[in-house]
This record gives sequence, C-alpha cells and structure tokens, in this order.
Amino acid sequence: MKSIEWLGNSLRILDQSKLPVETVYRNALSYKEVAEAIEHMEVRGAPAIGAAVAYGYALGAIEYQGDREGLPSFMEEVQDRLEATRPTAVNLFWALRRMEDRLRECWEVEDLDEVRRILIEEANRIAEDDCKMNRLIGQHGNEIVPEKANILTHCNAGALATVEYGTALGVIRKAHEAGKNIHVYADETRPLLQGARLTALELMKDKIPVTLIADNMAGYLMQQGKVDLVIVGADRIAANGDTANKIGTYSVAVLAHAHGIPFYVAAPTSTIDLKVATGQEIPIEVRPDKEMRECFGLQVAPSEVNVYNPAFDVTPAKYITGIITEKGIVAPPYSVNLLKLMVRS
Amino acid sequence: MKSIEWLGNSLRILDQSKLPVETVYRNALSYKEVAEAIEHMEVRGAPAIGAAVAYGYALGAIEYQGDREGLPSFMEEVQDRLEATRPTAVNLFWALRRMEDRLRECWEVEDLDEVRRILIEEANRIAEDDCKMNRLIGQHGNEIVPEKANILTHCNAGALATVEYGTALGVIRKAHEAGKNIHVYADETRPLLQGARLTALELMKDKIPVTLIADNMAGYLMQQGKVDLVIVGADRIAANGDTANKIGTYSVAVLAHAHGIPFYVAAPTSTIDLKVATGQEIPIEVRPDKEMRECFGLQVAPSEVNVYNPAFDVTPAKYITGIITEKGIVAPPYSVNLLKLMVRS
Repeated sequence: MKSIEWLGNSLRILDQSKLPVETVYRNALSYKEVAEAIEHMEVRGAPAIGAAVAYGYALGAIEYQGDREGLPSFMEEVQDRLEATRPTAVNLFWALRRMEDRLRECWEVEDLDEVRRILIEEANRIAEDDCKMNRLIGQHGNEIVPEKANILTHCNAGALATVEYGTALGVIRKAHEAGKNIHVYADETRPLLQGARLTALELMKDKIPVTLIADNMAGYLMQQGKVDLVIVGADRIAANGDTANKIGTYSVAVLAHAHGIPFYVAAPTSTIDLKVATGQEIPIEVRPDKEMRECFGLQVAPSEVNVYNPAFDVTPAKYITGIITEKGIVAPPYSVNLLKLMVRS
Repeated sequence: MKSIEWLGNSLRILDQSKLPVETVYRNALSYKEVAEAIEHMEVRGAPAIGAAVAYGYALGAIEYQGDREGLPSFMEEVQDRLEATRPTAVNLFWALRRMEDRLRECWEVEDLDEVRRILIEEANRIAEDDCKMNRLIGQHGNEIVPEKANILTHCNAGALATVEYGTALGVIRKAHEAGKNIHVYADETRPLLQGARLTALELMKDKIPVTLIADNMAGYLMQQGKVDLVIVGADRIAANGDTANKIGTYSVAVLAHAHGIPFYVAAPTSTIDLKVATGQEIPIEVRPDKEMRECFGLQVAPSEVNVYNPAFDVTPAKYITGIITEKGIVAPPYSVNLLKLMVRS
C-alpha cells in the first residue's frame, strides 16, 4: 500500500480519504489534479505531500505545450498552484524549491523532453530519499524505544504519510522488527480520523499490536500508567524546536509532560525550517466546517452550528524530549542543536 | 425538549442517540424498557438517569400482577435490573434507594394502587427536585462567571442530561439570562458526540453563542488564551472531591491546570458519594467496541481493530477549582468541605 507511485507519465495516488472502507486510486495526469488530491487530503502527511508536489511539478512540465523559452514562466504558475494547496507543512515548499532549483540548473538544456526527464529524475530522487530517510529515522529512533513499551501516537506519521515506511511509525516498525515487545495506542485523531483509519490499518497489516482510542482518552491512559512513550510526526519544525503537527499534538504533549512521559518528534530534516524562528510564525491551516459537522457525509452536529477547525497546532520545544531525524536524534537546546545539525549537512 | 416526561402510566423518553438529526420518542411502558433506554443511552446524563430509574421503579409497581405481599420481592428484581444498566453515575443508585425507602415506609398501606400512587409521587418529587436543584446550581454558579467569558464545556451536562435546565449548562444558561457576554466552546466528545449533537443543539436553541470543536482542540484554544473558564458536569464525586465524569474530562482538567484556567464541576449533591473515599474506588464503565469503530452505523476504522472504550475518567480533586452544588459552591479542601455540606443538609 504505497501513498503515491510514479507510472512514467502519471502519478498514481492512493485516495486515503476513503480508507479503510474502500481502496481507490486516482491516476493524476496533470499538476492541477495533484493539487486537488492534496487539498482533498487524498494524499496527506508532510513527506508524502513533498514527494507528490515534486511529481506534480514534473507533470506540469509534461503538460506544457509551448516552446523552451516559455517554460520557466509556465512552471512558476505550476509552482504557485501547488504551493497554494496547504500552508502548514514545510516539506511541500522544500520539495518545490528543490524542483525549481533543478529547473534553473538545466537552463542550458534546449530539448524540452530532456528537461522533462531531468525533472522526473529529480522527483524520483526526492521520493527515494524519503524512503531512505525514513529507514534512518527508524534506526536512530529505535535507540530510545525500551525493550517493552506502550507507545502512544497521534494522527498518522506512517507509510501512508510518507513515500514508504513512515517517520513516527518508522521508529515503531523498526523497534518491532528488532524484536521489541511493543504495543501502540493510536489516537483516532478527529475530525478526519487518520489514526483510526490509517495508523490502525498500517499497524494491523504489519501485525504490530495496536489499540484504537479516542483522542480524549490519552490523558486517562497516562494517568493509569499505560503509556511509556509518545512518538509523533511533524509538519514543520521551527529553528527553536517548536513543532507544528496535527491538531491535538499539543494536548498530548502537555499531558505527557504532566505525567513525566518522554515525548518524541520523528521527522526528516526537510521538515526543519530554520527561516522560522519560533512556532508562532508557522501558519496554521483552518479547514472547512463541514469536516466537523459531518462524518463521511453523515450529519453528526446541528447543520448550522458554528465551528472552529484548525488542522494543526504548535507544541513548544520545552515539551519535546528529542527530535528524531535521519541524521540522528537532536536533544535540547534545539536553537543550538538544530542549527548545528543543519549546517553539518 | 425534555429528556423524560411522565404521562400518567408511561414514561416518554426523548431518544437522544438520534439527535440532532431525528427527534424520536420512546414511550416506555415497562421497567425493562426504561433499563434498555438507559443502556442504549437514549436517556443519559447522571441526573436524567436518576429520574428515569425512579419512574422505571414506579412502572415496575404498575406492571406487577401479584398480591401485596409479593410486591417487595418483585420490586427487588426491578431494582436489580435498573441498577445493572450503568455502573459509574451514582444518581441512579441514589434515586433507587430513595424509591426503595419510600416503598419500605409505606409497608402498612395494603391497597396496591395506593402504593403505586405513592411511588409515582416519589418519582415526581425526584424529577421536580432535579429541576429546582439545577436552577439553584445555576444561581450559585453564576457568581463565578465573569461579565465576559469564553467557557469550555465537555460532553453534555445540560437540560438533556437532567430533567430540565442542566448543571454545567444551567450555570451557563443563568449567566446568559443575567445578561453576561458569554460564549461557549463545546467539545464534541467522542465517541458518542454528546457535545456536538446535544450541547451545541441546546445552546443554539437558547441563542447562547456556541462554537463546536474536536476534543483534541481544547489545548490549542487554551494555549491561544481563548478559554477563560471550564465548567463540566459529574457522574460521581468521591468524598475527597475526585470526580468521575465523561471520558476526556481528566485531559481537559490537566490542560486547564497547565494554563492556569479555573476548572469547575457543577452537580447536585445527589452526585456526591461519601461512601467512596477517593476516585480510585469509582467503577469505570467500558462500553462496546462498536462505538469506536463506527460512527452512527458507518464504519470509520478497520472492522477488526482492537479498541479501548472507557466511558468515564476521574479528575483528581487537586485540579478542581470548585464544586457548584444546589447548596452553594464547595471549595477545597474537599474532604472537609464536602462532608460539612452533606451533614448540614
């Protein structure tokens, strides 16, 4: 079950909004279709979105009908459309900048098909890098997982949120592969239930013991001593370590702190945004009211009720025990250690 | 919209499990039907359940076909059945004890119809008392509501959870009636969404400004300074002030504490159980897996996923700023002050 797959001249996207009930694919032939799939959250999760927009960018170049000279300005439109899909996760902007740089680097290449080939190659590299990085995140993260542990995770930072293997679930997968006796509590993650629909599904497929809970049960479990460790993904990490992730992550972090439970973030370094000093500068996407008033098309609240539906929140660095990246685990103080990590690369 | 209504020889129960989409009533003619309605959560909320079982008890006496002598042992069966419905809320046991006492007091009454009349009268008194107590809770509680406040509440402790007016929502109603500029954030309260379906509905009907949020958004709102006060209901309050209430209440209390936000419990004294020393002794109901895997019959998680579905949690007294009862607001230390309050009565 791969979140996205490049088929030569189209991008096959697993429509995650319909899982686990239906397994439906969209075969995106245009950059606009890729943008739509991201907006509808058919493909979601910061690293998966990063790779998807890279392929979307390549699709734009394939679609382009004009001459070589006109390509850069057309590709700006493509980039603008893809950037407008979702504001919080930084991997999207990071991947598009990488594609844009690649296009700029091959300004001397006259043949349009050759340019297209180069862009597809770059998108493939972004996707392959993601797979490699997740394996490394898993390896590093495994060091902090005890031999026997109940691990709580929020939302889905798994294979479905990436190109393969996952970040937070990558760590969990690796610990399981290493023979550790682990059991996962998956927050269902309202309103779109990524935990119930995707995390539970992924872990069951891999035969990793998992128990589904409602988001509001996490505190009760911690109070009962049933959680040893929290691992979540990230959509953007500020220079000081403040981390934007799926709404509800902040609540989990405060609860973990109150119960003395380690709280780890697992993400590739492409999620670290040193241009953003603190979490306060990270834009938080507010999604449609409908997602709260309905549950898969079924009305669950008064149809006219006023709704607040932020898709992310920011966990201050002080609540984060460590940030697990492909280059190793970063410990506080993050303002110093994240900079060191990024400069070293 | 009344949760229950006595119609002379039957109990009309508003089926809250279908709100807000459908407004359906069940006309319960037997104590077993009342028990069923409670188990299915057609009627829910500690005070409403208390009144409902009192009427269920009276229905048992109406159903009874034997002679006067056999009545007490039949009524024991009735009581056992009604007590077996839900374990956590204490009002149910409190109301049944009151009915049992009333039956015992009229042991000299030979005429069965006269006994039935007496029991119906007692059930009516329990229901009327509940209405009066909620108004008093509202009056006392209003004292701690600022002139302008954003109030967070969890689950539904409103008119629908009681016979009329509500406990936590009784305080909110009274503050609104008093002309205070208040706005309510309603946690949707998974898995059964009582906040989305019932609290939002009640407040909208009364034109009290309300915004619906997912349970996992409460922390983010507090972080943004958008919550001035938390008021919740209760299912059972231990002698030391530890309070069992709908699952998720504990998380809200920890979050409120971490943000320095006052956290109040509003409940009638019938919810205080001095026989229970601390919250650890309160039995916590675990409800069917189905409630987590489905949302109104619609599958939202892998059908075979392992689930944990506790219906309540216990908030330690240390997180509770005050307990608002019909006799006034109780402040810490609760072990001393709850005893004083109960002995005074």
